[in-house]
Amino acid sequence: MISFVNDYSENAHPDILNALIETNLEGNVAYSGDEHTERAAKLIRKKIKKEDAEIQILMGGTQTNLIAACAFLRPHEAIIAVPTGHICIHETGAVESTGHKCIEVKGCAGKVTPQDIEEACGPQHWDHAGILCVKPRMVYISQTTEVGTVYTVNELRELRRICDKYNLLLYCDGARLASALDCSDVTLLEMAELCDAFYIGGTKNGALFGEALVIINDSLKNEFRYIAKQRGGMLAKGWLLGLQFEILMSNNLYERIGKHQNEMAKHLKKGLIELGIDFTVDSPSNQLFPILKNSVLDKLNEEFAYEIISIIDEQRTGIRLVTSWATKKCDVELFLKRLKEEIYHE
Amino acid sequence: MISFVNDYSENAHPDILNALIETNLEGNVAYSGDEHTERAAKLIRKKIKKEDAEIQILMGGTQTNLIAACAFLRPHEAIIAVPTGHICIHETGAVESTGHKCIEVKGCAGKVTPQDIEEACGPQHWDHAGILCVKPRMVYISQTTEVGTVYTVNELRELRRICDKYNLLLYCDGARLASALDCSDVTLLEMAELCDAFYIGGTKNGALFGEALVIINDSLKNEFRYIAKQRGGMLAKGWLLGLQFEILMSNNLYERIGKHQNEMAKHLKKGLIELGIDFTVDSPSNQLFPILKNSVLDKLNEEFAYEIISIIDEQRTGIRLVTSWATKKCDVELFLKRLKEEIYHE
Amino acid sequence: MISFVNDYSENAHPDILNALIETNLEGNVAYSGDEHTERAAKLIRKKIKKEDAEIQILMGGTQTNLIAACAFLRPHEAIIAVPTGHICIHETGAVESTGHKCIEVKGCAGKVTPQDIEEACGPQHWDHAGILCVKPRMVYISQTTEVGTVYTVNELRELRRICDKYNLLLYCDGARLASALDCSDVTLLEMAELCDAFYIGGTKNGALFGEALVIINDSLKNEFRYIAKQRGGMLAKGWLLGLQFEILMSNNLYERIGKHQNEMAKHLKKGLIELGIDFTVDSPSNQLFPILKNSVLDKLNEEFAYEIISIIDEQRTGIRLVTSWATKKCDVELFLKRLKEEIYHE
Amino acid sequence: MISFVNDYSENAHPDILNALIETNLEGNVAYSGDEHTERAAKLIRKKIKKEDAEIQILMGGTQTNLIAACAFLRPHEAIIAVPTGHICIHETGAVESTGHKCIEVKGCAGKVTPQDIEEACGPQHWDHAGILCVKPRMVYISQTTEVGTVYTVNELRELRRICDKYNLLLYCDGARLASALDCSDVTLLEMAELCDAFYIGGTKNGALFGEALVIINDSLKNEFRYIAKQRGGMLAKGWLLGLQFEILMSNNLYERIGKHQNEMAKHLKKGLIELGIDFTVDSPSNQLFPILKNSVLDKLNEEFAYEIISIIDEQRTGIRLVTSWATKKCDVELFLKRLKEEIYHE
Repeated sequence: MISFVNDYSENAHPDILNALIETNLEGNVAYSGDEHTERAAKLIRKKIKKEDAEIQILMGGTQTNLIAACAFLRPHEAIIAVPTGHICIHETGAVESTGHKCIEVKGCAGKVTPQDIEEACGPQHWDHAGILCVKPRMVYISQTTEVGTVYTVNELRELRRICDKYNLLLYCDGARLASALDCSDVTLLEMAELCDAFYIGGTKNGALFGEALVIINDSLKNEFRYIAKQRGGMLAKGWLLGLQFEILMSNNLYERIGKHQNEMAKHLKKGLIELGIDFTVDSPSNQLFPILKNSVLDKLNEEFAYEIISIIDEQRTGIRLVTSWATKKCDVELFLKRLKEEIYHE
Repeated sequence: MISFVNDYSENAHPDILNALIETNLEGNVAYSGDEHTERAAKLIRKKIKKEDAEIQILMGGTQTNLIAACAFLRPHEAIIAVPTGHICIHETGAVESTGHKCIEVKGCAGKVTPQDIEEACGPQHWDHAGILCVKPRMVYISQTTEVGTVYTVNELRELRRICDKYNLLLYCDGARLASALDCSDVTLLEMAELCDAFYIGGTKNGALFGEALVIINDSLKNEFRYIAKQRGGMLAKGWLLGLQFEILMSNNLYERIGKHQNEMAKHLKKGLIELGIDFTVDSPSNQLFPILKNSVLDKLNEEFAYEIISIIDEQRTGIRLVTSWATKKCDVELFLKRLKEEIYHE
Repeated sequence: MISFVNDYSENAHPDILNALIETNLEGNVAYSGDEHTERAAKLIRKKIKKEDAEIQILMGGTQTNLIAACAFLRPHEAIIAVPTGHICIHETGAVESTGHKCIEVKGCAGKVTPQDIEEACGPQHWDHAGILCVKPRMVYISQTTEVGTVYTVNELRELRRICDKYNLLLYCDGARLASALDCSDVTLLEMAELCDAFYIGGTKNGALFGEALVIINDSLKNEFRYIAKQRGGMLAKGWLLGLQFEILMSNNLYERIGKHQNEMAKHLKKGLIELGIDFTVDSPSNQLFPILKNSVLDKLNEEFAYEIISIIDEQRTGIRLVTSWATKKCDVELFLKRLKEEIYHE
Repeated sequence: MISFVNDYSENAHPDILNALIETNLEGNVAYSGDEHTERAAKLIRKKIKKEDAEIQILMGGTQTNLIAACAFLRPHEAIIAVPTGHICIHETGAVESTGHKCIEVKGCAGKVTPQDIEEACGPQHWDHAGILCVKPRMVYISQTTEVGTVYTVNELRELRRICDKYNLLLYCDGARLASALDCSDVTLLEMAELCDAFYIGGTKNGALFGEALVIINDSLKNEFRYIAKQRGGMLAKGWLLGLQFEILMSNNLYERIGKHQNEMAKHLKKGLIELGIDFTVDSPSNQLFPILKNSVLDKLNEEFAYEIISIIDEQRTGIRLVTSWATKKCDVELFLKRLKEEIYHE
């Protein structure tokens, strides 16, 4: 079975597993007070050119998002996000479990727009009612988004401007940041310039697990680690997180992983387009959303794994194909070959 | 200044104030263990013909709703509601502060529809993702709704059916239940038959304060009072709540208040219609939502108070007019007279 | 039945009930935006000589304490209190329900001592472990305490000094502040000088309900009202709270109530001492804790109500006698007379 | 530097690292729906002879404890624990952050006693006050305890009996269960017989990370996974947890690790006793708490790492020495040799 189900189906990139073996008996200091974590932080700070950025490596995306909500917001403050945002739909209400409301805005192609924020913050929606409404305080975006799209630098700058207008924090979920850095014009430097905080995803980019939260805004740094610990986010063996990011941030491994993911996706996309396949959304990143006939899918099911996203009509289904650091070109080609056969066979 | 701003601008119905004077030195047992509370509960149980209904009288609507969420739901369970629902927009995220997500559904005229619930519970929205999504568990409705409309008995029966299909609780916010009982075909008996829990509003129906939560579903009764206390909802002088509901539930006072509110509103509505006024929503209850010219409103501002709800266009504004137990017919007529003058004056 | 059970067994002081009648149809602005609340705040600010103090009048003690914890603390910050403190034992874990731990310290006669704070903050208890422990951030005291004792000005100054040393907030629960102001050397001026926030109790001092939270520390004022609303603490008819404190703070009513409570308690205490009665704690305020023989109590049970506090041994029980604004001297004397008879009768 | 600081200073047992390498490209199903997790669960169920036990493998101890509190308790329910319990002192208030109070009881040698529970549940402490107090609902114990002691089977049976008397759940933190299974008379079978839920610790017993929560009581199983996900406890690559426990539960690896830890500790303890060293607590497990002269410690500091626990007096310090699966006998002997030299040198 060849899988395009997701980008986190393998254990980890071999460089990371090797590092685990090599460092096994080092005897590191617990709770992220170790040298690997310090080196990972330095490597990240260097890439973003922010020497005082606070780096906290947590275990997973839901955990990182909930701890950020918990640490960055006062109880009456809310998060603006689109309905497809991970926090709104696929985290079992983790943000709400910390007491904060998510204000869902319409969005466009999985992205928050300036107009969305204007409407959520405008007097017609909350200000006239004063304390009876939650106070919008943070905008949650994802890069790449959950539907595979990416923000451009200009879009991010526009969001920053509107966030400043309404005194909002801009927070970016970078679960798939490796792919985004490769296929958008937004660099890590600009992430750090324009966001108050963001995380560099590990789980979906070759790590066993781990997400590196980068806090830029000074007012958000204070005593963050207490809250990370309180919510179960501090690993006793914190150096395991640091070590993985030390590897990912060295020798351009993170960049190479993003590039490979996207190259495989581009190859796949090109082939799909040549076969006349439509997409539910046009995505430049490592997630593709083609629409296939059910009769064709029935034939491919035994050889290939993918996720069903939506029922288009009685004959067609929208699926998701994801490429990862481990995706092989021959597997992409085999998929396209078999798809072609089944389409012509119809 | 004559006010149509809301139905809670006066202290309380004179019968309630008199009862406070008369009982002042009785020396009642604290924390709702008193005889007035017991009598109020008995009167309510009799009206709904449910001898084992649990009655807990709390202080305000937001408090009642948040304590219900807190007591009735497990942490991963969510509430389905329309965006105009009080819990979604005017309680500063009180429900989310207890850790529970509100799933906003489209609704129709301020009311949750069966189709809304189907969509929120259908496989396309949460079931396929299993534990990654919150679990819908309670439907929140208001009778009257926040936009002045009411559910019919048939609509409530249909909601009950769909709630049973998806194992959902049906909870009704009765902040304006007196008006609803008078202008809909839903009686208290049917409220108790069709809802798992609902509250009989006091604050907006002549009480100083206080909302009587009626719990019908046995599985929701257990140790409710602990949670009410924990969230600040048990008044030391709980008999003050019981006493007020004893008065409201006696001599048809609650029914008479609802009737008076609606008669005043009908009188007002009839006059507005005669003047050719449009409404943003057609409501049969004690809240009316007419659209008036700004030039006319400018003239009425000094004599009459009301709430601005929406900017229709550059020349017109949607306002809200509310009648209460204390609204006088002569005031309604004066408003209509002055409005007529200003309209003709244009 | 003559009751010494507590100081909140009557509805309210007649001046308050009269004010409710007189103002009934005024038509006040909702959510504490009214003139009575403004006047109450001004009267309190004048008494404490702090023109910029923030005054928020909430409904009950548990609610006030939980909203203060919620608004004043970040998630990892904890409250230091004695085990007899109201928040530790009689609020159903309301503070913990907002996510904050109470660090219980030994105390002395119901009071937090400087030594307690030193131990709770010293390196041996939390600092060496860094983020693994909660961070003590607020000291909770009560004046009078739950066992009827009071802090002296010197004791409060010493607590202030140690709070400053460890960067702690000092918060005082003033549920029985009227009695304390009369029987201690601490004035309202000094409360405001030495505490970061405290509340002036209404419920136990002649109000129907209501506690006036006084926030002195500027850093605690910001957007407090949002959090009060979110936790169900904003009454729609907020002027009912303001009106009651306007009355209590005028014409020395609050001071007179405290004086009467204490005079009745002193009279009672003097009589008990003359009868050779021991006390579990020596209290100068309106709560007395005498130890009586069970055989004597059995005789008094039908005429007098009180609370049982502790089983001393097989023959004796510790009880609590409380006096209120409504306690009559003749009732105190009748109790002492009947007690004397039963003691001599033994 | 030879370290006795803790039992989680190495990455993982070599068998686990090897398994990670071997399974790297298997392509497992996400969110613990994989075969390794299923096999780990089966192995645990077989060891405890409970075929319907629910097994959920979470990432760390604090996370496991907080998710258990969150899933097992209603909002007003509290946990009984000793002050040295991990949840009371070293989890930054994680349990309280879920809204639940920890009722601290005195305990004996780090263990909860039946007398403790009686006092916490007896009428004098909460029942007479009814809903004003939290309701004790779960007893938290650790095996081994945080001070290295262990419960005997008889002690556990006695706790079970008293828990049944008061309708309490018995929950055991097994962070160091491998050591406990080797040095106490309590087997895994009895853990499952006597506890409602417990966890088998991985982090401190050779795993990279991971704790296997075993839920025995049927009423606690329902929809647990939603809450685990909501609190950030479901790893996308959940099979990494399953795989590690599959290894630990096979070939008696877990038992062998416990045995080795204890053998090293016994060797160390014997040597310390021969040198006339006192202990702050007498522990049979892999944590030892000797009292050493400061002058001696100053000499050993450069070669050996340990944790300082308490200042005994001006000349002596209580330290903690911990042995792990990776502790070498020669290192134990070197420590004893050097200690002996320094003691005789004095």
